[in-house]
Amino acid sequence: MTDEEEMVVTPWEVRGKVDYDRLIKEFGTQKISEELKQRIFKIAGEEHFLLSRDLVYSHRDLDWILDKYERGEKFVLYTGRGPSGPVHLGHLIPWRFTKWLQERFDTRLYFQMTNDEKFLFTPDLSIEEVHKYTYENTVDLLALGFEPENTYVIDDIKHIDLMYEIGIRVAKKVTFSTARAVYGFDNSMNIGGIWYTALQAVPAFLHSEIYGVKTPCLIPCAIDQDPYWRVARDVAEKLGYYKPASIQNKFVPGLAEGGKMSASDPNSAIFTIDTPKEARRKVMNAFTGGRTSAKEQRDLGGNPDICSVFLYYKFVFMPDDKDLAKIERKCRGGEILCGECKQILAGMVEEFLEKHQAAREEAKDRVDEFSAARLRDDLRR
Amino acid sequence: MTDEEEMVVTPWEVRGKVDYDRLIKEFGTQKISEELKQRIFKIAGEEHFLLSRDLVYSHRDLDWILDKYERGEKFVLYTGRGPSGPVHLGHLIPWRFTKWLQERFDTRLYFQMTNDEKFLFTPDLSIEEVHKYTYENTVDLLALGFEPENTYVIDDIKHIDLMYEIGIRVAKKVTFSTARAVYGFDNSMNIGGIWYTALQAVPAFLHSEIYGVKTPCLIPCAIDQDPYWRVARDVAEKLGYYKPASIQNKFVPGLAEGGKMSASDPNSAIFTIDTPKEARRKVMNAFTGGRTSAKEQRDLGGNPDICSVFLYYKFVFMPDDKDLAKIERKCRGGEILCGECKQILAGMVEEFLEKHQAAREEAKDRVDEFSAARLRDDLRR
Repeated sequence: MTDEEEMVVTPWEVRGKVDYDRLIKEFGTQKISEELKQRIFKIAGEEHFLLSRDLVYSHRDLDWILDKYERGEKFVLYTGRGPSGPVHLGHLIPWRFTKWLQERFDTRLYFQMTNDEKFLFTPDLSIEEVHKYTYENTVDLLALGFEPENTYVIDDIKHIDLMYEIGIRVAKKVTFSTARAVYGFDNSMNIGGIWYTALQAVPAFLHSEIYGVKTPCLIPCAIDQDPYWRVARDVAEKLGYYKPASIQNKFVPGLAEGGKMSASDPNSAIFTIDTPKEARRKVMNAFTGGRTSAKEQRDLGGNPDICSVFLYYKFVFMPDDKDLAKIERKCRGGEILCGECKQILAGMVEEFLEKHQAAREEAKDRVDEFSAARLRDDLRR
Repeated sequence: MTDEEEMVVTPWEVRGKVDYDRLIKEFGTQKISEELKQRIFKIAGEEHFLLSRDLVYSHRDLDWILDKYERGEKFVLYTGRGPSGPVHLGHLIPWRFTKWLQERFDTRLYFQMTNDEKFLFTPDLSIEEVHKYTYENTVDLLALGFEPENTYVIDDIKHIDLMYEIGIRVAKKVTFSTARAVYGFDNSMNIGGIWYTALQAVPAFLHSEIYGVKTPCLIPCAIDQDPYWRVARDVAEKLGYYKPASIQNKFVPGLAEGGKMSASDPNSAIFTIDTPKEARRKVMNAFTGGRTSAKEQRDLGGNPDICSVFLYYKFVFMPDDKDLAKIERKCRGGEILCGECKQILAGMVEEFLEKHQAAREEAKDRVDEFSAARLRDDLRR
């Protein structure tokens, strides 16, 4: 045994130090090559810092999706959220990346709120709570500035009528043996959770089904969700659909040492509903790469590689490489100490939260405009 | 090993010679006592031949339902059909009994068309086929003369929105271990079939949920469905509902020797869509309790105990005990031979089919009037 906890990465649990290259090997995905990155940037007409900084780092069939796209066959985007609690800044990162893809490729997005999953997989979570969080989390999504024309938010429980038939067609092709092997279930798993794994495949096929045109689907998601797409890909062609492609991100680091930003440790994450004052306090308590004394830090410099504040700059607040390089240089050179650096981040977080919270208020009345219930009319046509 | 095939009775398979008393013991239900029968007849204001002749023979909590009823607390009825093929006369027997209960107790009936179950449990059955049979079987149900005011036909796939939330609440309480033990699943079972077992509990709770009033539910059904209600009863109180009660019938005998009337052996059953001529042919080929020669039969008499023609009189066409006793006496006394007896039954079957098929035609345009989709309006109120 090493002194490090063994890595466990499933759609419901991430534990231990995550080895991202090993995950690519274990899951059988592919690393996004420099060439593929440049290809995306070229088609998109601009770079995106999450790709160039390798937070988005792995894929399945992204090259195939781009081939199709360049030949004029458009894809749809599909991502989602398990609404089991409030949203934190870490959640927003892949959503913003998804929005970039949506805008750059001018595609439709299906966003699945997996409230049934969260209800089924979380012992003490009630139906009322998952409904509440579905609404609250949708408000956070909309606050990022999505447009209803191209954005369809699927509420699993409320919109099950749109998905159930496809869901049972998927489920009929998946045995309990397979589910056990892929998701690590044992016999104490409830029969709803077992079923749910089929439902998560459905939005990848929904567009094809509703409009009667076989349509490629690209799924931006965190790497831990990959088991779902493996199963979706296994059944897709048997059901007459394309295999969904995916583009996968690493976990967003938290404010504590190591680990991802986690809703289960409130101090590791800044929630979108935190007061700016509360958020400032969390930032000021963040784990950094500072030295034991101010003098030592001025002499030897700080270590941004392990610093959660720096990671916030890198993955959220400093999309411009020049800004990031500047703060990194100052840190390593001992020009800036952690207290001052945290103050800078705290200011950015406060500003972001104020803006986001105002946008949340405006979004509250607009949830229905984004509802996948609109698809019912298209189905009937 | 005996020379008889071992008895296997699950919701999806009935094999071997069925020992009904043993089923009561194994399933843990109760025999309907003479006293309980008389109590039903008294409240109903009349007898029913299926109860007095013990085709309906077992129950759970029927006495409790009657206690509630007599104290003014009404129950709802729930039964259903797996629409995997055409309906035969055997299917109609419990439906007619259900209709009698509905009329005598003036209650609402929820009738579940389990098209998802049939799709999931039948390897070669397509979605299109289960939709077709859902419609066709509903037409058969309506042809029996149900009234829409008190009859709600649930199409699992089309009305899943009414049931999914209750379904996942049930499913969360049932582990794969339990499902495996109760239904005999192994790991090769598909994950949709595993889930479905939760959905079959839902109509028992639907009325309580929609109207916000905890309402007793009585389920008339064949004894092989009992495992479903055992699970439904286990979870009911945890979810705030009454345990569903049930009243269970034996399998309806077929035209061949032994076994139940089975859709998988077309000659064992008379389908409601058989032409009268075809039905006559099947009746004339039925297994009887006749002797090897006419002379022997006139001397020794026939044996109605093993005769499928007699069972048709008993469970379908001769509700009047005097009529039944008369034909039995003639048979045992050698007064009537099998050919003549079959001609009588064939005439009855032809007459029934002509009437039923005319009623089917009239019912075809009325399917929507009975749809459980009407419950959506009640939910919104």
